[in-house]
Amino acid sequence: MDVNNYRASDTSSLNKISTKELIIDAKKGLKVLRKKISKLQDTMYAEGKRSFLICIQGMDTAGKDSLIREVFKDVNARGVIVHSFKVPTEKELKHDFLWRHYIALPERGKIGVFNRTHYENVLVTRVHPEYILSENIPSIKNIDDINDDFYNERIDRINQFENHVKKSGTTILKFFLHLSKEEQKSRLLRRLNTPEKNWKFSEGDLEERKLWDKYQEYYEDTIKKTSTFYAPWFIIPADDKPTARYLVAKILCTEMEKCNFQEPRLPKDIIDKLEFFKKQLNNK
Amino acid sequence: MDVNNYRASDTSSLNKISTKELIIDAKKGLKVLRKKISKLQDTMYAEGKRSFLICIQGMDTAGKDSLIREVFKDVNARGVIVHSFKVPTEKELKHDFLWRHYIALPERGKIGVFNRTHYENVLVTRVHPEYILSENIPSIKNIDDINDDFYNERIDRINQFENHVKKSGTTILKFFLHLSKEEQKSRLLRRLNTPEKNWKFSEGDLEERKLWDKYQEYYEDTIKKTSTFYAPWFIIPADDKPTARYLVAKILCTEMEKCNFQEPRLPKDIIDKLEFFKKQLNNK
Repeated sequence: MDVNNYRASDTSSLNKISTKELIIDAKKGLKVLRKKISKLQDTMYAEGKRSFLICIQGMDTAGKDSLIREVFKDVNARGVIVHSFKVPTEKELKHDFLWRHYIALPERGKIGVFNRTHYENVLVTRVHPEYILSENIPSIKNIDDINDDFYNERIDRINQFENHVKKSGTTILKFFLHLSKEEQKSRLLRRLNTPEKNWKFSEGDLEERKLWDKYQEYYEDTIKKTSTFYAPWFIIPADDKPTARYLVAKILCTEMEKCNFQEPRLPKDIIDKLEFFKKQLNNK
Repeated sequence: MDVNNYRASDTSSLNKISTKELIIDAKKGLKVLRKKISKLQDTMYAEGKRSFLICIQGMDTAGKDSLIREVFKDVNARGVIVHSFKVPTEKELKHDFLWRHYIALPERGKIGVFNRTHYENVLVTRVHPEYILSENIPSIKNIDDINDDFYNERIDRINQFENHVKKSGTTILKFFLHLSKEEQKSRLLRRLNTPEKNWKFSEGDLEERKLWDKYQEYYEDTIKKTSTFYAPWFIIPADDKPTARYLVAKILCTEMEKCNFQEPRLPKDIIDKLEFFKKQLNNK
């Protein structure tokens, strides 16, 4: 399987890409990949030089949370840190739109996962430009100032941010969990029909669903403009959950393997003294 | 098995407690417990009211890292956050000794793990009082000011801190991985003898080992003074790793079960409208 098939090229159109792919034995495959990822992360941690940033985007019910649970199951909890970005807090709104993401970047040796990401700033806020007003940006006097130029400039700054992060030693992989509208309907209905699950439902889910086409349009535009060699997007068919999880794990594992992480070596003067240390230990 | 056997009472003496207990089928038992903990954490996350703070202390090679890896393997990465406390940074030293731990406390719904903890402030610094000088505490002019009163006052403040954390909805469980000096020797030798592992070795390990008795004395004193009903210590025999992991998981699982976490319920006015929402969905 060539994971590059899922890499978004700048000619990609979401409409043309399948949401329903099915990988046979995805569950078995995931188990194998998980063990590999766990081992690779251990070495990355020991090396202490590089890190990974996994960005997960997708419409409501696309399966972001359960994907994170399944893909990172075997990674030492010490080595992975998940940030679920919700509506910005008052404190966060007092900073620039990238600030809260910047301070959440993974430290060297770790995998950082953004569950919803800095892309919400050009997706949700593009569908709901009124949200931008609460950011108190000096140049924005009223809602008419929030036009395509505004979003394009944000997108440029996102690219620059990612370029900087990449150059600092962090591999960025961005995944769009591509769900069909039909599948979202059945997942929402399942929530409504399952008493133990229906607390996850909110009336807002239906309101957002009405804006489906707008979201698809802005996703497509954003993915085109931010598919870079230093921070690629992958379009993951998400109607089948095991397939989506397998693909994300496969891509992550492939990229980690490329890094060829090396455990640190003891300096020569210490190596030379190992026998001496052993003697010391055995005497105590 | 009564996990209360491992609860430190204020008459405990580390010398009298076995480091070598062996639990048959600890590995199988751990697997079952992990699944339970994962499920409990999911509900705790959904409830969003309470959290757990797991404090792990132990001498070098006691198995802290691998215990964390094994115990939290099945917990959604979203729900657990591990902080490995190293030598304080310059920035951290500019704050009071609890500050860096305070800002790392778990948010509601999550399990926070402290890999080494705020107790280092009355253990390492008690063995090496000169470290205290770099904290620039107003009342400390020179090393003679750092006496037993100084540490006892710190211990009081740790108790108050934990009382506050507990009252705010966080269950604190403190584990001392109790290793024998003999077992540490074989683990250090294994590191020295295994080329892929010997980067973990540092000359400092041998220096600290020479201070073994002092560490045991201060651990014992500290555990006695900080074994409270709101933040209990558990002395975990750690010479057998599967046993140690099983016991920590068992105690955590038992305490989580006591919490009786509840998934949130939709408000009545929304429940009443569920059929209406379903119709709306089916029309789109």
